[in-house]
Amino acid sequence: MSKRLVVIGGVAAGMSAAAKAKRVDREREVVVYERGPFISYAACGMPYYIAGDVPDYQELIVRTPAQMAKQGVEVHVRHEVTAIDVAAHTVTVRDRTEQGGDGRTFTQDWDKLVIATGARAAQPSMPGVDLPGVFALRALSQGMALRRFLDERQPRQAIVVGGGYIGVEMAETFRRLGLDVKMLIRSGQVMRTTLDDDVRALVEEELARQGVTVLQCQPVAFEGDGRVAAVVTTDGRYPCDVALLGMGARPETALAQAAGVALGPTGAIATDAHMCTSVPDVYAAGDCAEVLHLVTGQPDYIPLGSTANKQGRVAGAHAAGAQASFGGVVGTMVTRVFDLAVARTGLTVAQARSVGRTVSETMIKARDLAHYFPGAAPIHVKLVVEEESGRLLGGQIVGRQGVAKRIDVLATALHHALVIEDLQRLDLSYAPPFAPVWDPLLVAANVAAK
Amino acid sequence: MSKRLVVIGGVAAGMSAAAKAKRVDREREVVVYERGPFISYAACGMPYYIAGDVPDYQELIVRTPAQMAKQGVEVHVRHEVTAIDVAAHTVTVRDRTEQGGDGRTFTQDWDKLVIATGARAAQPSMPGVDLPGVFALRALSQGMALRRFLDERQPRQAIVVGGGYIGVEMAETFRRLGLDVKMLIRSGQVMRTTLDDDVRALVEEELARQGVTVLQCQPVAFEGDGRVAAVVTTDGRYPCDVALLGMGARPETALAQAAGVALGPTGAIATDAHMCTSVPDVYAAGDCAEVLHLVTGQPDYIPLGSTANKQGRVAGAHAAGAQASFGGVVGTMVTRVFDLAVARTGLTVAQARSVGRTVSETMIKARDLAHYFPGAAPIHVKLVVEEESGRLLGGQIVGRQGVAKRIDVLATALHHALVIEDLQRLDLSYAPPFAPVWDPLLVAANVAAK
Repeated sequence: MSKRLVVIGGVAAGMSAAAKAKRVDREREVVVYERGPFISYAACGMPYYIAGDVPDYQELIVRTPAQMAKQGVEVHVRHEVTAIDVAAHTVTVRDRTEQGGDGRTFTQDWDKLVIATGARAAQPSMPGVDLPGVFALRALSQGMALRRFLDERQPRQAIVVGGGYIGVEMAETFRRLGLDVKMLIRSGQVMRTTLDDDVRALVEEELARQGVTVLQCQPVAFEGDGRVAAVVTTDGRYPCDVALLGMGARPETALAQAAGVALGPTGAIATDAHMCTSVPDVYAAGDCAEVLHLVTGQPDYIPLGSTANKQGRVAGAHAAGAQASFGGVVGTMVTRVFDLAVARTGLTVAQARSVGRTVSETMIKARDLAHYFPGAAPIHVKLVVEEESGRLLGGQIVGRQGVAKRIDVLATALHHALVIEDLQRLDLSYAPPFAPVWDPLLVAANVAAK
Repeated sequence: MSKRLVVIGGVAAGMSAAAKAKRVDREREVVVYERGPFISYAACGMPYYIAGDVPDYQELIVRTPAQMAKQGVEVHVRHEVTAIDVAAHTVTVRDRTEQGGDGRTFTQDWDKLVIATGARAAQPSMPGVDLPGVFALRALSQGMALRRFLDERQPRQAIVVGGGYIGVEMAETFRRLGLDVKMLIRSGQVMRTTLDDDVRALVEEELARQGVTVLQCQPVAFEGDGRVAAVVTTDGRYPCDVALLGMGARPETALAQAAGVALGPTGAIATDAHMCTSVPDVYAAGDCAEVLHLVTGQPDYIPLGSTANKQGRVAGAHAAGAQASFGGVVGTMVTRVFDLAVARTGLTVAQARSVGRTVSETMIKARDLAHYFPGAAPIHVKLVVEEESGRLLGGQIVGRQGVAKRIDVLATALHHALVIEDLQRLDLSYAPPFAPVWDPLLVAANVAAK
């Protein structure tokens, strides 16, 4: 068997794994198969590319196959791995580069394999989901298609189906492009699993203020004659000329499952701290894999670009023979919702209770800068605290400035199991242009300590 | 003896102590003597008030004597405590409210005393330092006088003597008001004790870019006929029509010293974690007091509004009978220098070596946002790491956005003695408008780990 690392998937986790493996072991052959036309792109940037903030899709591309080749990594785009044979240590690859043809199929052997197949948009097998004008937003090609559609067709009425964070980001993008925007959400709640109700209310207030209508209803079909014209729901029919699936992501696990690679309780691929799967010499990383949640101690499914990069790096390093491990996450997330930043880390009250913790919650409203400083704006901080231990279990922050700043302090606190008294004691930076003399985090900690 | 808390000084620490004591024990009499005309103001906001960002000085005032009276705290402005008798548990107070007169002097007894006399601008006994047009910036009345002077006299040429952070902030203010600005610094180095040379170079580059001239020379006198006209130095005479003392702060300890209250090795008042001084029933808090530096384990003198508020709160709570302690600082600071935020925490390389630590240093340049996001700008992160243990000892960050955010993560790390590997594992927030997929902190940690 040759000393060859094969990587399936060439976006965040896959390219991180490939690049890192090559840096660790220059002698190792590293081959990447990516079924789409692009590698190594910033998928999280697509809402801003579609909005026109990022003029050219090429700015989202971090590295091209030619650049990877210079680093000694062989990349094949439009090559789909259709099967993994773990006993034979081979993959079957279909070459899709030939236009229109079926493409040749060949076998490639490996001594180490990284599965980085990513995720797909959660989408029901709803009638009409394949109609032109209905979009998902995982691959760059989907983002490019949506932008082209918006340019060429000039739709006026957008519907976002679902309230996940990509749905919320795209509601903003559509609105900024001048479209009418409705969000149709089964629960009626945006970011349902990531925020508590009181924090969500602030987000929904901002959406309403910016003209986004959020409706509770269950979409059952897309309708249209050669192009989407409406979303049909259990509560009626909503006309639209563009629609986006924003119901979250599901791990792409079919290939791994077929090869006998074990999935975890979340339905994503289970791994250990080295990103090794249940099958020797086979790694998984990124949006197809589970992640250890350090607050619950349980595997979780939280697909994010930042995690994918870290996991890929660990998988690549370990596969190439270096010491490397991924420490897990604490569930940190931030997103922009028009003028607000919305961030969370750890567990919401609902999540904490669902894993059997007894918690108290503190929600404060403060100012993000010194009260007299131009541009000072309200900021809301919520802390979730375990009652008996006083340990911080989670935080949620909504505001205009310094939100990502503050959630990262709470994330660091969660990594090291800090209690509220530890938070109260933090020597956080202070200057009028950046924070009030009592940072909102300290205000929240002081209130929570009472 | 009555159950009376007397507080000397009514700005940050003093008013925090008074307000907290009253909240802890509603029955306790709380009396504050402030020698100036104002209480409870945000001294750190003065550069922005003088620049016109904050239109009215009253916006800097958090609480007035009348508001404090409603909370049951008795405040006397223009009342100077001239002596403390710790044996008799009394203070001698001079009433300066009578215009022109000497004011009556009286004695007030206390069972607990908080000394919150603050700091004064370091100023040599230089000839001419009392000339009109030479300003310090500690008390609000000094800030108001400077703003009035700028309005009425319309000076064109400002000189800042010294390179402390107030000096740097005022250099910005003068420049933004259209004045020519020179900084005359004995060492030639701005923020000499707070930044390492490589980080300082970035600050000096920004000052130069914004038209501030920094000169190495030792000022020896101010000259002028009824108003400042020049600063005389060992290297020549520099004309000016306004001058600012920016050489840092010195603790106001004369009153405490005369009463037999012990000073610490830094020259500020020594306290324990409850802010108790060497004398029973006497507390000290704020810019007149030392602070425990958690990284060195030694007392330090780092006068900051944020620390003063925390110390005051602890002193007031403990004096009123509650449990309270101040945990110490890690040396966190942030300031704005024109378009840059400049932050530091922990120890610089020079500081670490001066306390006998063997350290390595890592300096990286990254982007503060996703590279393709509009407004993404360079950010520099420096880490100071103890060689043997891998423990983080300090950090310095310079950039345009998210600087205060990131220094607070490092500050939290310092509080809990994290090592570089801990930093590498942090699950920090990521979204294109707020951070790159590899946060600059993680990039720096990854480089430092090599």
